[in-house]
Amino acid sequence: MSAAFAIILAGGGGTRLWPASRRKRPKQLLRLGADESLLAAAARRASAIVGSARTMVVTAADQEDAVRRELPSLPPDNILAEPGPRNTAAAVGLGAATVLRRAGADAVMAVLPADPHIGDEAGFAATVRVALEEGQRAITTIGIRPTHAETGFGYIRLAAGGTAVRDVAAFVEKPDRATAERYVASGEYLWNSGMFFLTAGRMLEASRAHLPELGRALDAFVAADGAEAFAAAVRALYPALPAISIDNGIMEKASGLRVVPGSFGWNDVGSWAALPAMRAPDARGNVVLGSATLLDGSGNVVVAEPGAPFVGVVGVSDLVVVVTADAVLVVPKDRAQDVRRVVEEAQKAGRTDLL
Amino acid sequence: MSAAFAIILAGGGGTRLWPASRRKRPKQLLRLGADESLLAAAARRASAIVGSARTMVVTAADQEDAVRRELPSLPPDNILAEPGPRNTAAAVGLGAATVLRRAGADAVMAVLPADPHIGDEAGFAATVRVALEEGQRAITTIGIRPTHAETGFGYIRLAAGGTAVRDVAAFVEKPDRATAERYVASGEYLWNSGMFFLTAGRMLEASRAHLPELGRALDAFVAADGAEAFAAAVRALYPALPAISIDNGIMEKASGLRVVPGSFGWNDVGSWAALPAMRAPDARGNVVLGSATLLDGSGNVVVAEPGAPFVGVVGVSDLVVVVTADAVLVVPKDRAQDVRRVVEEAQKAGRTDLL
Repeated sequence: MSAAFAIILAGGGGTRLWPASRRKRPKQLLRLGADESLLAAAARRASAIVGSARTMVVTAADQEDAVRRELPSLPPDNILAEPGPRNTAAAVGLGAATVLRRAGADAVMAVLPADPHIGDEAGFAATVRVALEEGQRAITTIGIRPTHAETGFGYIRLAAGGTAVRDVAAFVEKPDRATAERYVASGEYLWNSGMFFLTAGRMLEASRAHLPELGRALDAFVAADGAEAFAAAVRALYPALPAISIDNGIMEKASGLRVVPGSFGWNDVGSWAALPAMRAPDARGNVVLGSATLLDGSGNVVVAEPGAPFVGVVGVSDLVVVVTADAVLVVPKDRAQDVRRVVEEAQKAGRTDLL
Repeated sequence: MSAAFAIILAGGGGTRLWPASRRKRPKQLLRLGADESLLAAAARRASAIVGSARTMVVTAADQEDAVRRELPSLPPDNILAEPGPRNTAAAVGLGAATVLRRAGADAVMAVLPADPHIGDEAGFAATVRVALEEGQRAITTIGIRPTHAETGFGYIRLAAGGTAVRDVAAFVEKPDRATAERYVASGEYLWNSGMFFLTAGRMLEASRAHLPELGRALDAFVAADGAEAFAAAVRALYPALPAISIDNGIMEKASGLRVVPGSFGWNDVGSWAALPAMRAPDARGNVVLGSATLLDGSGNVVVAEPGAPFVGVVGVSDLVVVVTADAVLVVPKDRAQDVRRVVEEAQKAGRTDLL
């Protein structure tokens, strides 16, 4: 394999883990009871495969300082800050241009979201190695074998034939419940993990073909003479790039895509309800993070972030209670997505400090 | 009627409204969504009957300052601080000795707990006037007509005969559920309100008869020559008085007691679950105090005290959520009494600041 790089996408905001997550403390910077943040875990897993010298992170300007503090073992030049948020197609393009300048068009890249939790890291590494190998020849993705009829994810429909690596028939949008059940029962659909594997040169080609404005900007980034000219080109062109996801902007339009099915305890940590699947719950199914007091009850997620008031929870079941220094969330576990409605109320109340 | 006084007992600590209530901010100092604290309401109701010049408050030394701030319209001399907590027999005795020194042995006193909520204040005043009248001749209490088979209160068994004023057959201890149901069905039992009406002289006589140590101390308080000698006697003798309630120490032993049955929206605010009965709940039965956000759900009590973090509660039912600057409580409404277990945990954790 030619030199392989990892491009970790760490620009997300997201309110799904509010009030622990905020614009300036996004989900990927949370530890959620572990010794390291989701981002630090992602960088550690990637470094184990491609080496820390070739592990790169693309992040948002207002998260750059926090990301650098979180990843002291990465070379400083490997942390790329977007001048402004332009969604994932532009972010991957920025990574690809940087990789191409360092190692040429044939360098293969693992594009990895910063925030999933991976339960089986050895299984993850093995799957990524297969995908990186395949990514030298074709745009490749990892599809997660579904464990339930999730309606919150996009799916990948497999084409007939193939074994460890399959052809992608299509990316499909988030389904309704009945459709999701049909997908899972068929065995021919995988969850879209948002992980992509391709060479830097192919990212530029695909951008030129499907997002010409991005293609022209990436060509300018690559042509820049020296680090200063590169930085100036990024500052000049990046803010005007089309804000579109790499899924919608490139993957769904490209042909010849390949997919490696994987099962390695992937969890997108889409809400507080995900915690019991990633942090060993107690005998009654409770997960308590931080110094909170939980008496009786079962199936609860109780989180006291550093600086939180004293938290006492008694006799409740299947409830999420999250407390930070400045906010308290109480929501049933099966309605954990409704946290966004609370965030909207905070916004309406002018509490921008809580966003 | 000879001059009538009110003795408001405001020495309680109590953890049943934790985390809003603390040792130094006891239940009677809470506003619970009203414009005045429970204590201020009690003093206002009493002053309307006996006048503010004859409305007195007995409180604990470490609550004295807070009580004085809460009741600026009472004469400063009417706020009596116990040198140390000795329960209600001693507190009423201290009040009685003070009244006797001011107005003689025949002055009648309304002994009133500071912390119940009264829904029908006109009904309360009318009942108290009857009890004060009767209190000139006999130790009199107000018994609350029970609205349900409460197991958390003591009961008063009525003797046969009488109309607006009845003879007390006996004070009985908190019953179990079946007994409480029998009591309520019989129509011959009332809730013990802890309100007593008697002359200052009779309080001294009853103390001499049933709690001789208290009787001797009260005689010494009365005999003291001047305010300074009185204060010195209280300092010297009060801390060694028997710590016993007036119910156990005197009322259950005395004979010839009279009781005025009353129905005036009396609520002892025994837990957070009491709030919907005293603060008009919304159409879904929710009570929200302070600036908390409650979305969906029914039957909840959500309280954000001043200084609390932002509180967002979504989609829960029959839950109590109380947030202060330094503590969060989450408990089902029907287990609101379990708050004491959380307080015990805070104590075990050495968080004396939260007690």
